[in-house]
Amino acid sequence: MSLSVTCYRCGEGDENAARVRCSCGEPRWIEPDASSFAWSDCRDYEGMWRYEPLLPIDRPAGVARAAGGTPLVRSPGLDDTAGCRVYVKDEGEHPTGAYKDRGSAVAVPHAIAAGNDAIGTVSYGNMAMSTAAHAASLDRECVVLVPDEIPAGRLELIAQYEPTIVRVDGDYGALYGDALALSDALPIGMLVSDSPTRISGYKTALFEICEAFAPDAPDAIVVPTSSGGFASGMWRGIRDLEAAGLLDDAPRLYLVQTAAADPITRAFDAGETDPTALSPDETGETIAHSIGNPDPPSGGRALAAARDTGGAVLSVTDDELRAAKRRFAVDAGFCVEPASAASLAGATRLSDRGDIDADESVVLVPTGTGFKELGTGDASVATERVRRADLSERLGSLLGDRLGAR
Amino acid sequence: MSLSVTCYRCGEGDENAARVRCSCGEPRWIEPDASSFAWSDCRDYEGMWRYEPLLPIDRPAGVARAAGGTPLVRSPGLDDTAGCRVYVKDEGEHPTGAYKDRGSAVAVPHAIAAGNDAIGTVSYGNMAMSTAAHAASLDRECVVLVPDEIPAGRLELIAQYEPTIVRVDGDYGALYGDALALSDALPIGMLVSDSPTRISGYKTALFEICEAFAPDAPDAIVVPTSSGGFASGMWRGIRDLEAAGLLDDAPRLYLVQTAAADPITRAFDAGETDPTALSPDETGETIAHSIGNPDPPSGGRALAAARDTGGAVLSVTDDELRAAKRRFAVDAGFCVEPASAASLAGATRLSDRGDIDADESVVLVPTGTGFKELGTGDASVATERVRRADLSERLGSLLGDRLGAR
Ligand SMILES: [Zn+2]
Ligand SMILES: [Zn+2]
Repeated sequence: MSLSVTCYRCGEGDENAARVRCSCGEPRWIEPDASSFAWSDCRDYEGMWRYEPLLPIDRPAGVARAAGGTPLVRSPGLDDTAGCRVYVKDEGEHPTGAYKDRGSAVAVPHAIAAGNDAIGTVSYGNMAMSTAAHAASLDRECVVLVPDEIPAGRLELIAQYEPTIVRVDGDYGALYGDALALSDALPIGMLVSDSPTRISGYKTALFEICEAFAPDAPDAIVVPTSSGGFASGMWRGIRDLEAAGLLDDAPRLYLVQTAAADPITRAFDAGETDPTALSPDETGETIAHSIGNPDPPSGGRALAAARDTGGAVLSVTDDELRAAKRRFAVDAGFCVEPASAASLAGATRLSDRGDIDADESVVLVPTGTGFKELGTGDASVATERVRRADLSERLGSLLGDRLGAR
Repeated sequence: MSLSVTCYRCGEGDENAARVRCSCGEPRWIEPDASSFAWSDCRDYEGMWRYEPLLPIDRPAGVARAAGGTPLVRSPGLDDTAGCRVYVKDEGEHPTGAYKDRGSAVAVPHAIAAGNDAIGTVSYGNMAMSTAAHAASLDRECVVLVPDEIPAGRLELIAQYEPTIVRVDGDYGALYGDALALSDALPIGMLVSDSPTRISGYKTALFEICEAFAPDAPDAIVVPTSSGGFASGMWRGIRDLEAAGLLDDAPRLYLVQTAAADPITRAFDAGETDPTALSPDETGETIAHSIGNPDPPSGGRALAAARDTGGAVLSVTDDELRAAKRRFAVDAGFCVEPASAASLAGATRLSDRGDIDADESVVLVPTGTGFKELGTGDASVATERVRRADLSERLGSLLGDRLGAR
């Protein structure tokens, strides 16, 4: 299959999916010929491979086959908090616990088919785990470049798949550019957050959401945003469906950043086309480890995605994230990572300021599971202690109190 | 819908799904009229609700809608270890990270519809999290009875859904019986590991596996086994499909216990009909926290399931679990909990002793995600440390070493 790999901004293109950046400086993506695609063309495959006709590779072997097909659940318990009709697309239900598996499912097999002896990535979070897992399932070496100061818990999560873990002594933020150069110099397929093949995988989340609503579409989709890769995938998905004539009224894309590192929000508010990289004194600590890139490589494209679809980019604080994470669990039964709670916290802000109406159908996308960070036993938990012989009596009275307090 | 709730052993039955035990002492299950069911009768719903015609309730609201629909992945990287053609059914990809969500999805809404003000359960593991999450998503009180000595990490995992957590001072093993009595005395729907409505939910895992292979079926299914509830669900599913005429050659059910607490294995080997409860000095420590019930309430039914399908019950050691957990990650890309690794460790034993042939298709069922227990940073991890300026040179040489060592 000959690929069309293009730049959303200047339109320039070629067939090289391994080339990440356009000569204009912007990131590229893979543009399929979707003009004749219909929902009935979907394959009878599990998960994201149902959309094989719009993907740059045929369904591969390995854990890639478990990617996608995550639940989309109407969650009325969150309506009051979000100020709209809430649907939750739980991307944490993936083999490595995050939407990253959609991207790895395309990018890793594609890089292997292109002749690379090994796969590599620059990440010490969900992308690192996902890339390592997909390489492992295809029996390929994987190199993960992490910062020298990586927390021990993260190291353990990545190491289970046994990649070669390289702690890099130096400016970790500069490694995005280094990785692209390394890919040319060595037989390593270096996959970054916005490699064109990753973006192809991400767009399947948009397809799943829109197919579930077809022939209608949700009014809006709210996603946590860091590098802009996932937002780019969502936008690419919208463009594919529009090319196919399957989307009359595209959902508005709302992108939510952590206030601790929000260059895309700043650019959106300032009406700028490109975000400006934040210096260390412009960023802060945050519980949202999975988002918070001070120099997002797909920041310009994320801005274009929000504006083109009539959406917006906004930021939320750690306090808002904590409250939203709690509501996901207590009102909807979902255990999401702190960064993922940005979807709900963002929706609350958007409805408060009138960008989202109470009768609108809005899809929140928690991008990763909360189980990776839970279970340390650090939190203090209130419990009742009851002797077994007193259980019936004490439970009756406890329950009366709890039910009465509702 | 009028229910038929029966005993697999004596055949006695009535319509009361809340009654867990038969007068003969054995656990009961719900027996639908499956005689006219065809695969084409499946609903166009996500996940397990596609089998609504064989379930005792209509599709409910809430997180129940995210249950089931887990990936079934051909995983050739595990063939050598398991000694057969391996498929992985990754039950960790659930809202609360375990197959328990299938059971809660039926049992919790059913108990609410039956008029209970609150839901309760006896568990300090995956079942506790799942029951609390499903009750929360339906805005109901939930009471979780845990042992007084519960580890802090477990407490944190359960507490996120904000049930009333009761630490019970006394014999925790005796609480199964207490729970059934409490359910009669208080307006609490106490759900135990083998409540008939839970078993109904579990059988959907079997349906998903068999529908994927239809009109054929896998040769065998290997599941970790503790209380015997999940094994009972698998067997109930086989019976439903046989009643429908959809299963000519049912898969053999292999049930795997931890050697640290394996009353069902002992009874199987001794040719007995019922397991004998193990005393504290007959059990040991194990990393397989999720299995290891010394007095399994559905033990007799699990034995019958293994024998009736031509399978077996067997045990594996912690060393075998550690090795199998590693192989799941390194050869297939799946992060499973230690107890779940029993599926692979069991398959290895079965093929070594000739119970499973190399050309047989065998479904391993890791029942829960490994992410709940990982990420503490306790493990020691080997890394390379490289200066950014030396990356290209050092990576080239590292990679040469790794590829050469293959
Ligand atoms: Zn360009
Ligand atoms: Zn009976």
